Amino acid sequence: MAMTDAMTGAVGVASELKVIAFDVFGTVVDWYGGIAAEVERTLPGIEGGAFALAWRAGYQPAMRSVMERIAAGEGGFTLIDELHLGILEGVLRDFGVTHLDPVQKRELNRAWHRLPAWPDAAEGLARLKTKYTICTLSNGNIGLLTDMAKHAGLPWDCILSAEVFKAYKPDPRTYLGVAAVFDVSPGQVMLAAAHHDDLAAARGCGLKTGYIERPLEFGPARTKDVSPRPGNTLHARDIGALADLLGC
Amino acid sequence: MAMTDAMTGAVGVASELKVIAFDVFGTVVDWYGGIAAEVERTLPGIEGGAFALAWRAGYQPAMRSVMERIAAGEGGFTLIDELHLGILEGVLRDFGVTHLDPVQKRELNRAWHRLPAWPDAAEGLARLKTKYTICTLSNGNIGLLTDMAKHAGLPWDCILSAEVFKAYKPDPRTYLGVAAVFDVSPGQVMLAAAHHDDLAAARGCGLKTGYIERPLEFGPARTKDVSPRPGNTLHARDIGALADLLGC
Repeated sequence: MAMTDAMTGAVGVASELKVIAFDVFGTVVDWYGGIAAEVERTLPGIEGGAFALAWRAGYQPAMRSVMERIAAGEGGFTLIDELHLGILEGVLRDFGVTHLDPVQKRELNRAWHRLPAWPDAAEGLARLKTKYTICTLSNGNIGLLTDMAKHAGLPWDCILSAEVFKAYKPDPRTYLGVAAVFDVSPGQVMLAAAHHDDLAAARGCGLKTGYIERPLEFGPARTKDVSPRPGNTLHARDIGALADLLGC
Repeated sequence: MAMTDAMTGAVGVASELKVIAFDVFGTVVDWYGGIAAEVERTLPGIEGGAFALAWRAGYQPAMRSVMERIAAGEGGFTLIDELHLGILEGVLRDFGVTHLDPVQKRELNRAWHRLPAWPDAAEGLARLKTKYTICTLSNGNIGLLTDMAKHAGLPWDCILSAEVFKAYKPDPRTYLGVAAVFDVSPGQVMLAAAHHDDLAAARGCGLKTGYIERPLEFGPARTKDVSPRPGNTLHARDIGALADLLGC
């Protein structure tokens, strides 16, 4: 097979790289499909996709207020499990669901622990693991990410999380924290993610970046622009394609 | 097979338990054998076993001074890699080794990342993993434990470490931290270790305890008392035997 320019570039990247840290929600697992299915199973009559989008839409504002409270010295580190549960209360109200008791709400909230992996993820990660250290770098808490890995068969070498660094992405302490944990330079770490803002923040810290297309992240009804952007080190259709590019 | 009293007790434990956290050095990996072999390979003429014992003997005093400095507000959290390197300087001096440059010392220090697992460890852990969440709980740093797991094929669900909790064993924050990470009660967590002091501290926090015999932890020349003590929930010859007791 003839080497393309992208592949020639990837050979250089592959030799320097030591660690690949993965964003998780949307990049490795399908939160839209997983939440939609669980909602339709447990709340008959509710449109699962719309519920999933509403729940996820609450995440950014909730995370922003946590960060503002921390910055103002008024709050501490909050686990995503708690954040998700707080958002869920509002979404249930908006969808007119009033019959769930606290135990049922907590059980539904654990749907985030059981999200299905994208079909290419487990095998692609296993290939990358033969050559690199592969870890999570997610704002999700350690327990959530561990349950998810067991459930979906994700073969992480290590679970890293905002909970380890006591700072949330896009705080530089998270990206630089990965390099520090493994005693390598930022340029020996790649963040792989389906979100350009996350990748841009990692790039600002000197990490390499791999964009993973996930055109169905927000479900079949919402279009996502997955075209390549020049700032990223690599661009891959999925995690298997990333393994191809890196010669695994 | 007739049920023994120990087995009947284990059935009750098995049903409540969710997470097994393992001490690592001595319990899962053979630091004596690993360090001795690496020293004999890289420092011809030096008696590897004696060197390994001296290096390990420096650990408790070094850790104690780190903890005292932290308690006095004079020091921060220190990675075991740094601690090992500091101790190594003294041991090299004591053994009359003067020719290593800083790069060679760092490379030798990484022997702790490459320690061999006890022969039963990888398979025993894989069996336990089918039923429980299995993680490390070590004062070793995350990078060291991750390298070790890759090298020795240890199938951890999650790497937990003093580095995550910013406190060292036997600080209660480490044992209770495991329960908090996985959102379970202390009684749903078992610490498995080859050291009674570690197990006693975990028991004081409400964890269950599993003693793992490792009669050769300090090499063939030094006797280790591995007889059962009544305080522990379970007593197992090795990790495979722990899996037997827990019905995995």
